[in-house]
Amino acid sequence: MFNIALFGCGRIGKVHAVNIAAHPNTQIKAVIDPYHEGAVQLANQYGATVMSVDEAMADKDIHAVCICSATDTHADLIEQAALAGKAIFCEKPIDLSLSRVAACLEVVDNAGVKLLVGFNRRYDPQFRTLRELFDSGAVGKAETLVITSRDPSPPPAEYVRVSGGIFRDMSIHDLDMARFILGEDPISVSAHGSCLVDPAIGEAGDIDSAVVILRFPSGAMANIINSRRSGYGYDQRIELHGSKGMLKAGNVREHLVEHWGDEHCSSAKPQNFFLERYKEAYIDEWQHFVDVLEGKAEPQCSGIDGELALELADAALESLQQHKTVELK
Amino acid sequence: MFNIALFGCGRIGKVHAVNIAAHPNTQIKAVIDPYHEGAVQLANQYGATVMSVDEAMADKDIHAVCICSATDTHADLIEQAALAGKAIFCEKPIDLSLSRVAACLEVVDNAGVKLLVGFNRRYDPQFRTLRELFDSGAVGKAETLVITSRDPSPPPAEYVRVSGGIFRDMSIHDLDMARFILGEDPISVSAHGSCLVDPAIGEAGDIDSAVVILRFPSGAMANIINSRRSGYGYDQRIELHGSKGMLKAGNVREHLVEHWGDEHCSSAKPQNFFLERYKEAYIDEWQHFVDVLEGKAEPQCSGIDGELALELADAALESLQQHKTVELK
Amino acid sequence: MFNIALFGCGRIGKVHAVNIAAHPNTQIKAVIDPYHEGAVQLANQYGATVMSVDEAMADKDIHAVCICSATDTHADLIEQAALAGKAIFCEKPIDLSLSRVAACLEVVDNAGVKLLVGFNRRYDPQFRTLRELFDSGAVGKAETLVITSRDPSPPPAEYVRVSGGIFRDMSIHDLDMARFILGEDPISVSAHGSCLVDPAIGEAGDIDSAVVILRFPSGAMANIINSRRSGYGYDQRIELHGSKGMLKAGNVREHLVEHWGDEHCSSAKPQNFFLERYKEAYIDEWQHFVDVLEGKAEPQCSGIDGELALELADAALESLQQHKTVELK
Amino acid sequence: MFNIALFGCGRIGKVHAVNIAAHPNTQIKAVIDPYHEGAVQLANQYGATVMSVDEAMADKDIHAVCICSATDTHADLIEQAALAGKAIFCEKPIDLSLSRVAACLEVVDNAGVKLLVGFNRRYDPQFRTLRELFDSGAVGKAETLVITSRDPSPPPAEYVRVSGGIFRDMSIHDLDMARFILGEDPISVSAHGSCLVDPAIGEAGDIDSAVVILRFPSGAMANIINSRRSGYGYDQRIELHGSKGMLKAGNVREHLVEHWGDEHCSSAKPQNFFLERYKEAYIDEWQHFVDVLEGKAEPQCSGIDGELALELADAALESLQQHKTVELK
Repeated sequence: MFNIALFGCGRIGKVHAVNIAAHPNTQIKAVIDPYHEGAVQLANQYGATVMSVDEAMADKDIHAVCICSATDTHADLIEQAALAGKAIFCEKPIDLSLSRVAACLEVVDNAGVKLLVGFNRRYDPQFRTLRELFDSGAVGKAETLVITSRDPSPPPAEYVRVSGGIFRDMSIHDLDMARFILGEDPISVSAHGSCLVDPAIGEAGDIDSAVVILRFPSGAMANIINSRRSGYGYDQRIELHGSKGMLKAGNVREHLVEHWGDEHCSSAKPQNFFLERYKEAYIDEWQHFVDVLEGKAEPQCSGIDGELALELADAALESLQQHKTVELK
Repeated sequence: MFNIALFGCGRIGKVHAVNIAAHPNTQIKAVIDPYHEGAVQLANQYGATVMSVDEAMADKDIHAVCICSATDTHADLIEQAALAGKAIFCEKPIDLSLSRVAACLEVVDNAGVKLLVGFNRRYDPQFRTLRELFDSGAVGKAETLVITSRDPSPPPAEYVRVSGGIFRDMSIHDLDMARFILGEDPISVSAHGSCLVDPAIGEAGDIDSAVVILRFPSGAMANIINSRRSGYGYDQRIELHGSKGMLKAGNVREHLVEHWGDEHCSSAKPQNFFLERYKEAYIDEWQHFVDVLEGKAEPQCSGIDGELALELADAALESLQQHKTVELK
Repeated sequence: MFNIALFGCGRIGKVHAVNIAAHPNTQIKAVIDPYHEGAVQLANQYGATVMSVDEAMADKDIHAVCICSATDTHADLIEQAALAGKAIFCEKPIDLSLSRVAACLEVVDNAGVKLLVGFNRRYDPQFRTLRELFDSGAVGKAETLVITSRDPSPPPAEYVRVSGGIFRDMSIHDLDMARFILGEDPISVSAHGSCLVDPAIGEAGDIDSAVVILRFPSGAMANIINSRRSGYGYDQRIELHGSKGMLKAGNVREHLVEHWGDEHCSSAKPQNFFLERYKEAYIDEWQHFVDVLEGKAEPQCSGIDGELALELADAALESLQQHKTVELK
Repeated sequence: MFNIALFGCGRIGKVHAVNIAAHPNTQIKAVIDPYHEGAVQLANQYGATVMSVDEAMADKDIHAVCICSATDTHADLIEQAALAGKAIFCEKPIDLSLSRVAACLEVVDNAGVKLLVGFNRRYDPQFRTLRELFDSGAVGKAETLVITSRDPSPPPAEYVRVSGGIFRDMSIHDLDMARFILGEDPISVSAHGSCLVDPAIGEAGDIDSAVVILRFPSGAMANIINSRRSGYGYDQRIELHGSKGMLKAGNVREHLVEHWGDEHCSSAKPQNFFLERYKEAYIDEWQHFVDVLEGKAEPQCSGIDGELALELADAALESLQQHKTVELK
């Protein structure tokens, strides 16, 4: 049984809490959150102890940390956990600054601990199936990858202000997914965007609608289509066109009941947001982390993946601002 | 060029008029309808002559008749045309009385003319494809055939009163389709029904919702589901379950544009009724009749098919009234 | 925390074991199975004790029983549990004999214990949604219900021999579903069938392909289409046609990735069988039983539902044998 | 009845020949093609006369020309027809050189004749419906338009060499479609591409896989995804994301029959290529030209539309070559 210290009791912390507790080989030993009341509540629910960061890091019975706290605490916590010799699961991103990420990963490397970065979509059964079919040769050589990724509704402008911008906050998942599916690192990035959904997002210095084009050494291209608002739920689709056809992962709908009436035939919308859509992915992601803890697997998505996705996001921002394609390396 | 005498200027007469005129090898020579004004209008539109029945039958330049008049005139017109040596296309049914049908077909046989009975759905490209795939062995041996056939909205009670009832008027198409797809003649019929859509239909002595089960010598069963009202257009579907899987012909929708909104995802309803849904079938049906005229084909759906479908409809009525399965032959 | 005695360690016993153990308010206290080795293994896995039937019934710490043993033990175990004052969850059927069922239910009634009969499909999220939409008036008054229910592949003839026949073993789920969806009890049953899938089933005195028609007091009809073999997975669909349109619950596919290639476009088959298809239903069913244990709910599917479904299955058999519609009551 | 001179007897000339002949108000009077044998055959089929260009232009009985000849003859024929006072239908493009197009359109303007440029997809019922729904406010303000347009298989390299390149030959349809749907003219173009399908295309100086991003004054973006090969038929889809949801026009399949088997569920591929997919569009396009001839409509797609689409194609090429976004005007 592995004892886990859970950092952060917010929405995503609660998702992981459920999965840690439900897994036969892990349990929550410590809960750490500056919001004391929330920490107490979660700790009580799972029979855990509320601790300070230092207490948790010093506790020899804690085997691993699950970092779900605010983004600007990730890199510090990773470093402390690494120095304390604990295995690390950290929600994306490691940090919003590439240099901070690099420094952090050096600490992790030197400590020789395992680090799994939480790009949850890599574990989604639909996208996994698509990648497996691609790997099995179902569509031959990859040519064009089209990722549609649209949130149901825009976040508040205050969130946008600290988010690092749409590329680092939202597209980063899709940039990672492109690398994950194609198994290549891009050689150029071209980004385009508009503020169409909410003027407050524009006033916060960001855009809310984006298109990003990646080119890969093989010549394959990835086309990412993002929006902060779909109007019809969480739109998460992937199309992979290859030399022998197409693979296409559709949305997961709220249910499968259709209504045929005198106006039209209607079916359910896509599941509303990531908590529903990626519920199974979070479970499988935690299973993978347990496999890492048990020495059965190496992290499928490690620090370098977090770093490369951030590099692509930064390049997208540069491309957007300079109206040109940014070459990488 | 074959000259055609068109009997009947109603809805279905107009459908055939368009197709006769559009075919490079046929033209409308005569139009016959007791409703003189309608006949004149149609004749003018196609450069044809308004004639009486006798004139048309006597006209040596008329090679074939297309009978789209009221049901109770079909058998008489078929006989007159047969005696006049003309090839005959007749809308279903030949007559609502089995004995009248038998007598009429004897006249046709003795005259040695070609008779094509208009079960239009046999020419529908979707159902044709299904049958061709079945014939090619795509699902092995037939086991269960499910035909869903629902009109968009109920006819007026006055129509119901002279229609011969739902089995002879509506289910007859599906009874023929079951024979067409499976290539067998049923050995028993079981029918069930209710009057749910419009009480006036019940008062007219008919039902508006029906289920018919046919059993075939091979053991295969056909399950026909009928209603005078779908509420969402013309519902015309076929599922054929066989020893190696299923073939399934879906509805043809009004268009292929989906709308995804905050309530649900909607797509277009099925095409509204037979004029839209079977537009292509009517064209292909007429092409087949021209092939018959040209000696290139024998009627795929002849008098005997009309007779057998009516026999099944009569058996369905008997089954409904007696609450038991009716064995045939 | 409710302590549960689990009777039967077979396939379905294991499904419930997982759900009992995963529920925060229930745990497996005792495992009972004549196959001792299986009982030991399951007991060890969940920290439970292997007991005899009498030991389990006598154990005051056991609050409820979960009966997943062979069909012919159900009624006896229900009676013993009732006399021991334990709440009862029993997999369908209570018994294959109607008189045995009636006697058993009298014992339960006299004991005043709660009995939940396991018609798992009632808890399926898809069918629940369909029923909720119907109850909310989405399609008006019910007219025709079409239930397609086809197993992926036929059971061995030995199983068929003790199964009670297709109606009592397989259609019974659909007969219950018809009552569940429509909220009415049928007034007549008409059944039709063939042995097409496996001659050994016929030699065992059963059929493997069936169609059952139910009529309800409202005039609504239910049309059940069963087969022991689909050839493409577990085909579980429901269509409800009402006065204002149709509701349609489709199959749950293995995944949502399509492959478009030079032959055709392909998508995944329906999930293979009930363990996958009704995984969530079993969890929700157990949650409902816990609600019953906690006094928060009355059994949604009690002894009388088990009895009525069996009555319908018996009537179907009578109808099949006598080639007539069987009137009920 | 309008007499039409048909220039060009190739694949697309034959499409128009059928539609001209089938329309009640038009007939083919003259056929002009340097390939004499083809001209004779087509002329015979439709009761027309083979003429030289000059004869046709001089014939006072010819009301309009339908130009389906080789691309490099279009501008000359348009000018001659304009000077001869004939209404003009011309297949796209007017010419591959923007300056030649401008000169040609000046001649047309001065002559005051009607010119309809054949961007056939504007008349496709699916895309029309999408635009009508958008115009009716179904999805609010446009945000992102995604056009997927992939040919079934690549053309021979010889064709590529004279085609003007993928942007002028293939993407031009999608560039026009973006203008047609959104009702705006782009302010910038960014293009990306690879040669992945056939090295011979690369040797011919072209690419075969392209992504083009257009930005519009409203902030809306259009994302065009092109390939010379789909591997599964003619992939023609449009998604329009707006402030209130999405409209999505799917592919038209070869038929609607699904096969469910032990491997997967399969449905028919998209119709193979433009002759099938846009059959109805060509008919509606010709109807629109007849409306123009009859003074009932102004050309919905005139010379300026042809010119603007070419401008966008040229800008795409410039963007591709210079790795930057090209601003327009």
